[in-house]
Amino acid sequence: MNRRRIDLNADVGESFGAFSMGQDEHILPWITSANIACGYHGGDPQTILRTVKMAVQHRVHVGAHPSLPDLLGFGRRMMQISPEEIYSIIIDQLGSLHAFAHVCGTTLHHVKPHGALYNMSAQDEEVADAIAKAVYDFQSDLILVGLAQSKSIQAAKKYGLRVAEEVFADRTYQADGTLTPRTSPHAMIHDVKQAVNQVLQIVMEKKVQTINEAIIPMHGDTVCIHGDHPQATLLVKQLHRTLRAKGIELKGME
Amino acid sequence: MNRRRIDLNADVGESFGAFSMGQDEHILPWITSANIACGYHGGDPQTILRTVKMAVQHRVHVGAHPSLPDLLGFGRRMMQISPEEIYSIIIDQLGSLHAFAHVCGTTLHHVKPHGALYNMSAQDEEVADAIAKAVYDFQSDLILVGLAQSKSIQAAKKYGLRVAEEVFADRTYQADGTLTPRTSPHAMIHDVKQAVNQVLQIVMEKKVQTINEAIIPMHGDTVCIHGDHPQATLLVKQLHRTLRAKGIELKGME
Amino acid sequence: MNRRRIDLNADVGESFGAFSMGQDEHILPWITSANIACGYHGGDPQTILRTVKMAVQHRVHVGAHPSLPDLLGFGRRMMQISPEEIYSIIIDQLGSLHAFAHVCGTTLHHVKPHGALYNMSAQDEEVADAIAKAVYDFQSDLILVGLAQSKSIQAAKKYGLRVAEEVFADRTYQADGTLTPRTSPHAMIHDVKQAVNQVLQIVMEKKVQTINEAIIPMHGDTVCIHGDHPQATLLVKQLHRTLRAKGIELKGME
Amino acid sequence: MNRRRIDLNADVGESFGAFSMGQDEHILPWITSANIACGYHGGDPQTILRTVKMAVQHRVHVGAHPSLPDLLGFGRRMMQISPEEIYSIIIDQLGSLHAFAHVCGTTLHHVKPHGALYNMSAQDEEVADAIAKAVYDFQSDLILVGLAQSKSIQAAKKYGLRVAEEVFADRTYQADGTLTPRTSPHAMIHDVKQAVNQVLQIVMEKKVQTINEAIIPMHGDTVCIHGDHPQATLLVKQLHRTLRAKGIELKGME
Repeated sequence: MNRRRIDLNADVGESFGAFSMGQDEHILPWITSANIACGYHGGDPQTILRTVKMAVQHRVHVGAHPSLPDLLGFGRRMMQISPEEIYSIIIDQLGSLHAFAHVCGTTLHHVKPHGALYNMSAQDEEVADAIAKAVYDFQSDLILVGLAQSKSIQAAKKYGLRVAEEVFADRTYQADGTLTPRTSPHAMIHDVKQAVNQVLQIVMEKKVQTINEAIIPMHGDTVCIHGDHPQATLLVKQLHRTLRAKGIELKGME
Repeated sequence: MNRRRIDLNADVGESFGAFSMGQDEHILPWITSANIACGYHGGDPQTILRTVKMAVQHRVHVGAHPSLPDLLGFGRRMMQISPEEIYSIIIDQLGSLHAFAHVCGTTLHHVKPHGALYNMSAQDEEVADAIAKAVYDFQSDLILVGLAQSKSIQAAKKYGLRVAEEVFADRTYQADGTLTPRTSPHAMIHDVKQAVNQVLQIVMEKKVQTINEAIIPMHGDTVCIHGDHPQATLLVKQLHRTLRAKGIELKGME
Repeated sequence: MNRRRIDLNADVGESFGAFSMGQDEHILPWITSANIACGYHGGDPQTILRTVKMAVQHRVHVGAHPSLPDLLGFGRRMMQISPEEIYSIIIDQLGSLHAFAHVCGTTLHHVKPHGALYNMSAQDEEVADAIAKAVYDFQSDLILVGLAQSKSIQAAKKYGLRVAEEVFADRTYQADGTLTPRTSPHAMIHDVKQAVNQVLQIVMEKKVQTINEAIIPMHGDTVCIHGDHPQATLLVKQLHRTLRAKGIELKGME
Repeated sequence: MNRRRIDLNADVGESFGAFSMGQDEHILPWITSANIACGYHGGDPQTILRTVKMAVQHRVHVGAHPSLPDLLGFGRRMMQISPEEIYSIIIDQLGSLHAFAHVCGTTLHHVKPHGALYNMSAQDEEVADAIAKAVYDFQSDLILVGLAQSKSIQAAKKYGLRVAEEVFADRTYQADGTLTPRTSPHAMIHDVKQAVNQVLQIVMEKKVQTINEAIIPMHGDTVCIHGDHPQATLLVKQLHRTLRAKGIELKGME
C-alpha cells in the first residue's frame, strides 16, 4: 500500500535569552512536528516553555532536539565525546523537554538530534547506539528521527524504537542517496518551487532526482524545513498547501 | 505524640567535569535524603547520573537541588530574576533530575532549593510561590524542603505540597529562631560534639539553645549536613550513630 | 565657550556565535565611538575581532563595553557581586578588547559599562569606584562613559580619569534629570524626529524638555544610539545628518 | 657548550569560582614559570588575579595557558575549530592574562597552550600556525612553549618567536621521542625519585631512557610539573632541591 501521508518537521525554540533565532511563530502553524531545542545549543528555559505552549496551541507534536554542549558553536561542531557522556547529555535534555511538555499538558513524541550530533549519529555506530539507548531507557515509545538509511536509524531499530526517516526539501541528493555536502555550491535548493517539487517526488513516487540527474529510490517519513532558509516561511506554507492540494495527508509521525 | 524520627539530608553531586566538589561517597552512606545538583550551580550530566546511582545503591532518597543559573558564583549570589523565569528554571532542573532518577529505576522524592534561591524563597513570597507552583505543576507529590517556619514552607503548603522543615547541625540560632548570619563569628558550630548535641536537643526536646543562651522551641523534619564542613564525614557519622543509639529512627521525609 | 561638538556612540559587537544581534554594519558608518561587547553579555572572540576591524575601517573610536557575567540575561539583571569581583571582571574585559584593538593596529579609547552594570555604577558608589579603579589601573588615559551627573562620573573623576557624560536620543528625562524608568509608558521616544530634536536641544541649548514639560539644564558629551531601537539605522543617519547640517562637529570624546 | 640550566613550569590558576583545582600555593614557590589559566578551561577573573599576584610574589614568570572554549571538558577534548577561531580565542586569552599581569606590575613572559589545544598544535600544522600567528601579532617577544620537536615549535620558529621545548618529569618516552600515550599502563612515572632522575638525565646528559630501555637524545628547555600528580608538591620540591644540589641553575626560559 502506498501510504500518501507525510510529516513536516522544523527545529524551533532555539532563541537564547535576548538572542532571537528563527521565525517560530510563522513556521509552527504549518508543520506537524516541532523539534524543540533543549538548552545545549540554544533554548533557555523560558524560550522552551513558550515554544512548547505554542506547539500545543497549534496541535503540533512536541519533540526534543538535543545537542552537543556547545552554545558558542550552536552545536554545529564535532567534539571528542564518550558514549557515556552522550548517554548522559541525552537523558538530561530529554528530561528537560519532558518536564516542559508535562506542565503544558502534553507528552514527548519524538527526538531528533541536532547539528553535529545528528551527523555523528548518522555515521558513527557508537554515537548512534548511545543516543538510542538513552532514548529507549528514558521513554521507549519515543520516535527517533534520523537521516534516512543511516546508522542512527539502524541503532534505533536495534533497541526496538520507532523511527522516522528524514528527507530534506532544500538540500540536494547525491547518486548514493546521501546529501550533497554543504561545501558544494549545489548543496542547497534555494528555489521554493524546486524544493516543493522534490518533496512531491519523494512522497508520491518514492524517488528523488540527484544532482547528477539520476533518479534514485528515496523513502521519507518526515520532511525537514530549515527555519534559517531565506524563505522558510514561504517554503513551509507552499509545501503545506501543495501537499494538501495533492491529497497527501499531513500528519505527525507514528 | 513525640515522633522520634528524623531525616538527614546533604547536598551532593555538585562536582562539575574535572572540578571535584564535596565528599559524596563518604557522606552518602550515612544520610537518608540526597539533594542532587541539577547543573546550574554544579553537577554535569555524568556527575548527576553517577550520584543518583550511588544514592540508589545506599537506599538514600533522591531529591533535586535546583539553583539560580550561576555556575561561576556557585548559585550563592542573589540576582534579579522574574517569577516566570524562576518557574521555568525549576521545571528545567526538576525535569533533568527526574530523568536521571527514572533511568536509574527510582523516582524523585523531594526538592530543596540551593544557596541564594533557598534564601530568597525563605524571605520573598513571590519567589517562594514561583518555586512551589513549579514543583506542584511538575509532580505534586514531591516534598518541598525549606527553612523551618519560612515563606518557602508557607507557599508550599498553599499549593498542598508536603513540606519538610529544615534545621541545621552546624549553624547557631538566634533568639527569634532564625540562623545567625554567616557574617557573625558565631554563625558556625565547628565542634562535632556540639553540633550533634544541638541536633539531639531539637529532635528529642523540640527545643534549641540560641547564641544568647536562651532556650526556644524548634521543630525540624530534616537535618542538613554541609558537605563542605571541615569535618563533614566525621560529623555525619557521629550524628548517624548517636541518633541511632538514642533510639531515634533515621528515615526519609514523608 | 560653547563647544559645538558631540560624539555619537552605540553598543555593537553583541552577536554571539550563530546568534545575531543588532545591525552593526548599518550603524557603524554614522557614529564616532563604538562600545564593543567583551564576551560577558554578548560578543564571542570572532565577533569582537570582526567588529573592531569594522570600527577601524570606519574610523570609529574603539571602546570596551564590559558587563556582568550573564549571557543568558544579556547583562541586564543586577546581581550580588563584590567590588573585588567587579574589579577583576573589568580587567578581564578591558584586556580582551585591548588585545583585539592591538592586533587591529589601534588602541582602546574609552569604556562604557553595559546594562545592569551601567545602572549599578550610576547609583552605587562602591560599584562605581571598583570600575573606575580597574580602568585607571589598566590604562589611565581611557575615557569613562557614564550617565550624566551620576556616581559613575564622580568616581572616575576621583581617579583622575577623563569622563564623557552620556545623554540619550530615544529616552525621556524626568524633572530631576534622571531617565524615565523603562517601566513607564513614556520612557521611550519612538519618533525619530522627536529624538533628533531632543539631541539638538541638548547640544545647542544645553537644556532638555522633561516629560512634565519643564525645561532643565542638561549637559552631554556623547549621545547614545540604541541599536535595538526599531528604527535605529534611520535614527542614527538622521541624527548624523541633522547635526552636521547645523554646523555641529561630530567627533569622538576627548 | 653544555648549558646547565633549566626552567620548571606548572599549570596553575585553574580553579573556577567555588571549584578548587590544584595546589597552587604549594607549587608556586618551587617553579620558575607559571602557566596561568585564562578562563576557558578554568580560571575565573578573581582566581587569575590572585594567581598572578602569587606568581609575582614568588618571582615566577607569568605565562598564559590558553585553551579551547570548554569548561565542562576542562579543555581536554578536541573539537572542530577553524584556524580563524583559534586565532581569535588566543588573542582573547592573551589579552586577559596581559591585563592581569599589567595591573600586577609585571608583563607576560610566555604562552603554553592547554590540553587538547596543546596536543592539536603539536600535530596539526594549521592549528600550530594559527596559535603562533596570534602570539606573534599580540606580543612578538613572548616565548611559545610546546612539545619538544613538534609542529608547534616549528610554527613558532617560522614566525620568529622564541621557543621553549618542553619535557616531562612524570611521563615516560617512547623510542621515537614521543610521550607514551596515557592509555598505556606505563605512561606515568609515579615514583618521585624516578621522575627526578629522568629530569637529571635530560638536563645533564641531554638523553632519556625510553620505556624500551633504549637511550635516545632528548633536549628540553623547560620541565613540566603536573599539579594533579598525586605527589606534585613533593615532586616539585625534590626536583628543585636536587637540580640545585647538582649545580644546575633554575631559571626562567629566555
